[in-house]
Amino acid sequence: MIEAIIEANAGHHLAYGDDPFTERCSALFREVFDAPVSTLLAFNGTGANVVGLSTVLGPGEAVICSDWAHINVDETGAPERFLGAKLIDLACPDGKLQPDQIDAVAANLGNQHHVQAGVVSITQSTELGTLYTIDEIGALCERAHAHSMRVHLDGARLANAVAASGGGSALRAMTLEAGVDVVTFGGTKNGLMGAEAVIIADPSRWPAARYLRKQATQLPSKMRFLAAQFNAVLADGLWLDLAMHANAMAADLGRRVIALPGVHLDSAPEVNSVFVRLPPEAIEPLRRWTFFWDWDTSRHQVRWMTSWDTTAEDVDTFIDGAGEILAQCN
Amino acid sequence: MIEAIIEANAGHHLAYGDDPFTERCSALFREVFDAPVSTLLAFNGTGANVVGLSTVLGPGEAVICSDWAHINVDETGAPERFLGAKLIDLACPDGKLQPDQIDAVAANLGNQHHVQAGVVSITQSTELGTLYTIDEIGALCERAHAHSMRVHLDGARLANAVAASGGGSALRAMTLEAGVDVVTFGGTKNGLMGAEAVIIADPSRWPAARYLRKQATQLPSKMRFLAAQFNAVLADGLWLDLAMHANAMAADLGRRVIALPGVHLDSAPEVNSVFVRLPPEAIEPLRRWTFFWDWDTSRHQVRWMTSWDTTAEDVDTFIDGAGEILAQCN
Amino acid sequence: MIEAIIEANAGHHLAYGDDPFTERCSALFREVFDAPVSTLLAFNGTGANVVGLSTVLGPGEAVICSDWAHINVDETGAPERFLGAKLIDLACPDGKLQPDQIDAVAANLGNQHHVQAGVVSITQSTELGTLYTIDEIGALCERAHAHSMRVHLDGARLANAVAASGGGSALRAMTLEAGVDVVTFGGTKNGLMGAEAVIIADPSRWPAARYLRKQATQLPSKMRFLAAQFNAVLADGLWLDLAMHANAMAADLGRRVIALPGVHLDSAPEVNSVFVRLPPEAIEPLRRWTFFWDWDTSRHQVRWMTSWDTTAEDVDTFIDGAGEILAQCN
Amino acid sequence: MIEAIIEANAGHHLAYGDDPFTERCSALFREVFDAPVSTLLAFNGTGANVVGLSTVLGPGEAVICSDWAHINVDETGAPERFLGAKLIDLACPDGKLQPDQIDAVAANLGNQHHVQAGVVSITQSTELGTLYTIDEIGALCERAHAHSMRVHLDGARLANAVAASGGGSALRAMTLEAGVDVVTFGGTKNGLMGAEAVIIADPSRWPAARYLRKQATQLPSKMRFLAAQFNAVLADGLWLDLAMHANAMAADLGRRVIALPGVHLDSAPEVNSVFVRLPPEAIEPLRRWTFFWDWDTSRHQVRWMTSWDTTAEDVDTFIDGAGEILAQCN
Repeated sequence: MIEAIIEANAGHHLAYGDDPFTERCSALFREVFDAPVSTLLAFNGTGANVVGLSTVLGPGEAVICSDWAHINVDETGAPERFLGAKLIDLACPDGKLQPDQIDAVAANLGNQHHVQAGVVSITQSTELGTLYTIDEIGALCERAHAHSMRVHLDGARLANAVAASGGGSALRAMTLEAGVDVVTFGGTKNGLMGAEAVIIADPSRWPAARYLRKQATQLPSKMRFLAAQFNAVLADGLWLDLAMHANAMAADLGRRVIALPGVHLDSAPEVNSVFVRLPPEAIEPLRRWTFFWDWDTSRHQVRWMTSWDTTAEDVDTFIDGAGEILAQCN
Repeated sequence: MIEAIIEANAGHHLAYGDDPFTERCSALFREVFDAPVSTLLAFNGTGANVVGLSTVLGPGEAVICSDWAHINVDETGAPERFLGAKLIDLACPDGKLQPDQIDAVAANLGNQHHVQAGVVSITQSTELGTLYTIDEIGALCERAHAHSMRVHLDGARLANAVAASGGGSALRAMTLEAGVDVVTFGGTKNGLMGAEAVIIADPSRWPAARYLRKQATQLPSKMRFLAAQFNAVLADGLWLDLAMHANAMAADLGRRVIALPGVHLDSAPEVNSVFVRLPPEAIEPLRRWTFFWDWDTSRHQVRWMTSWDTTAEDVDTFIDGAGEILAQCN
Repeated sequence: MIEAIIEANAGHHLAYGDDPFTERCSALFREVFDAPVSTLLAFNGTGANVVGLSTVLGPGEAVICSDWAHINVDETGAPERFLGAKLIDLACPDGKLQPDQIDAVAANLGNQHHVQAGVVSITQSTELGTLYTIDEIGALCERAHAHSMRVHLDGARLANAVAASGGGSALRAMTLEAGVDVVTFGGTKNGLMGAEAVIIADPSRWPAARYLRKQATQLPSKMRFLAAQFNAVLADGLWLDLAMHANAMAADLGRRVIALPGVHLDSAPEVNSVFVRLPPEAIEPLRRWTFFWDWDTSRHQVRWMTSWDTTAEDVDTFIDGAGEILAQCN
Repeated sequence: MIEAIIEANAGHHLAYGDDPFTERCSALFREVFDAPVSTLLAFNGTGANVVGLSTVLGPGEAVICSDWAHINVDETGAPERFLGAKLIDLACPDGKLQPDQIDAVAANLGNQHHVQAGVVSITQSTELGTLYTIDEIGALCERAHAHSMRVHLDGARLANAVAASGGGSALRAMTLEAGVDVVTFGGTKNGLMGAEAVIIADPSRWPAARYLRKQATQLPSKMRFLAAQFNAVLADGLWLDLAMHANAMAADLGRRVIALPGVHLDSAPEVNSVFVRLPPEAIEPLRRWTFFWDWDTSRHQVRWMTSWDTTAEDVDTFIDGAGEILAQCN
């Protein structure tokens, strides 16, 4: 990554994306998606989601999403603020929207007293570490399109989802082919220093998108530094290798946590997050040792994540250390 | 009502509220609330709610409300659009927020990834025809204020709530005294041709309020026509008499619908709405005869409402007509 | 007007426009515009402008207008607030935009650092009492459309413009035929108690418009009371007669003010506003006698307006009274 | 810069600013401002301006700025979109607001038909390469505060202004001491790869600021990479040396361009921008050789900028090359 930045730092280049790094980045995205997509680089996930949603949202429309959606709970109201739009958040115990839920909201279409849903936003892999199958995404898109809605996919961890779904060709299959209209393709959670991409399929939506990105304060002046990061991982499938590795480490971690005293794993990790329930008194001692986020505090559930740079030794160290602390708390 | 309009129509008056009708209206509101409140007239309920919320919402803050709240489901996203704010809608099976629900949301205060709730909005009487007691509102306000949140009360049917809670003095008790910071006082549903009022307790919030009303497109130029409508009902307690009458008609209707074939009343009406479950096949024939809104379609529940001008004969006619149609459908 | 309200008050009618008064109102607007337009009633001018603009504004776009435009200076920022859009206000000493000014702004189209103008908003008759000719509006629309912009016409005083431009058939000629995409048709300034209409030509823009009106808090529940007001004046050309009368009174006033001591009239009134420059020391004494608005305080210019109910006697009285005060101030 | 990034890349750190690099960055800003300020890092200038403005803007308020202001012409409407606020742009031929212009806008305070200005935004050094003196900024702040307005300073090139105004101590003098409430402190234009800072003086505005930054999509997850960039230049006065150098190169360039055929320099550069008028036919050939932005096309004026890494040889090369092209065009 650093090497890529150093390379982009050499020489003078035009700002705002008129540089060879950004050009190459767009070409690489067309390659990995195997489609003539338009790519807009952005600084962070919230920014990329807001830009992505704005490119497909019509006047006065609302966004359907899961109640666990990052746009709903982890973006401090940025979507509502920038879009001026309601998020219709639906209860999804496993983080996955169901086609029938779209129908239920669509029952309000045509009634001027109710906000009109225009976009369905799904997250792949979800905030709960679950995965939509390619067919499930296809079914959601079909249902959304049947109601003239468009589909946005928040792919902050899309690489992990692709890695868990059969590799490279699954990217196109679970997005454009399935019917997704706009994708947030995450980089930061997959090893980049800070870069996300908004991928837009429909050429009629490309022209307005550039202005919406700038308006959302997401136009980087020295864009080559963001492009260079993506170029470093998109080139030889590295993005997928990194995600595959993170998933493998999570699988390993998942297999081993169940042997720890008092730890409950509700289901084997599908991607790179391991959701475990812990003895309540052990949570703070564990967190003092190594930081992690609470998940469902009512069930004493926390989220342990692996990443592109987690090593087998890291897992060993974690299992040993956590085991010791848990033993003391029992 | 018409007489009031005719009177306001005579002679020339300055626009935008610099007229004796509006002045009198403000005085009457100070009287009925028994407090030095500021009153802003507005055209309709959605407008009054948006203005009211805007006067107490801080920068970047969100609004807590019931999932049944009018602002959440019946205003086509107007609050999110004008305020740029998230509505955090919480499940309230009876339409009433509970203090503990405020605490649960307040757990996110101080976390920069989560939107910060700044206002609690409740509806009295609720969209489900239920009533908060004065103590319940007091408890909600206390909890909200403890978290530095302000409280907005959507009183589209506040008159019916006051009428059902012991009359006139209950108005002040269930609003300002209980701790409510800003009230939408409904007129249109209580017999006016079209007028609502935003009542603001805290003088430090008065100056900005006028500009926010205009910005929300709710400043009437010939304001005297709105003021005159309120003046006609506020003067001699007529507003309360009308609401009391509507409540009485609903009580009567509630007592009599249970004798109709196939009709289930889950609970006696508290104000002027009667929620009944019907044989599914009878709903459309009944609606063709006289219009009403569906409520919970999954339970075949509909809402029948009485109003200030419902007569005892209207109830008779309704019971007879509905009985006939229901008999045919059985 | 009152008679119309009384009639609309009789009987029970469905709310939100599903009533015969609103239906008739739509038919009358199709008649006076001689075109299959969609009509949305609204409460006030600011609301109608905001709704009208929202129906033709694309994602991220800005609005071009005159620096004197009501939307720019007299609406407390409501357009920016609701639309989230920049108003690009251009210097128009006579209140009238010129086609070349549109070209100048269009030079920024395609540059992602500059906001993209999508709508041109003009006012007819203008805030300065001037008139666009039909050809001038045609030329503006042609230029705007050539840059893929749409045209909004703020017609708070459109009746006066039509009256001054040859009568009834000029309405269609200076709006739809000239290329205007959406019209705010004013009622309140032409004698109504409070009602405006948004007239939309393009059927593809009709569906979203209803939701945008509700979202802008401009959906009247008892819409019949607004429709009835319009019906009373649209039926037999009364709207035009009223405007013609107001214009005639202004012409008369204009002819006579020049004889008053110290009063300068820069140009004969084109519609119903008379802009005069006064001796500075006379302004406050005159205003204490009868209220009027300042216009250009740097030139001691004020605006005197006539209206549908100004009588010849009113003009006499005004000339006599003003003459006396002016004489005393000399 | 790269070294700083490499250092920040080593080891694992908590996200969202809970890391030693960000902590040190805050300490360094307190040092260079010599005051207990709060610092919020942001990705780019538009983002920092929007965040900065949002921290001082009250409900419904507008922003006064120069017609040349970056927020007005170069941010694609981002401020209006995020803030929902009008920018009142005033004609400033030299890019500098005058205190009397604030008074003129303040004449509308208290009038509910006109938007209420709450913030004055100035740019130092200005978009036209001019400089406010410390006293001028003090006078503007005094006037703004007298009308209860707050002052935002867009300091994308604040380093160049400080360098041109006597060095380090001028930073505090021309901002906090002069009365500025919130500062956008630019980094990207002074050599950073991409980082800006919002500096807030008033502690009562700190709490909301964090949520507003996240809501404006400007919260960097791996914040240490932004902090490290600032740390590299803030530590030993490097930020000032870089700016001083850029200014010196511009001064040199300014002295030498006047000898070029057909080149007019209206005034000696005050900071690091040289505005020249060129023979119209020479502009495109020159731009093909090396890119620069047009400035005032009506006067064939363009902007040539020097930067922190411009060398004396670069100036030589430029003068030689431009001279040749200009000679050919004559």
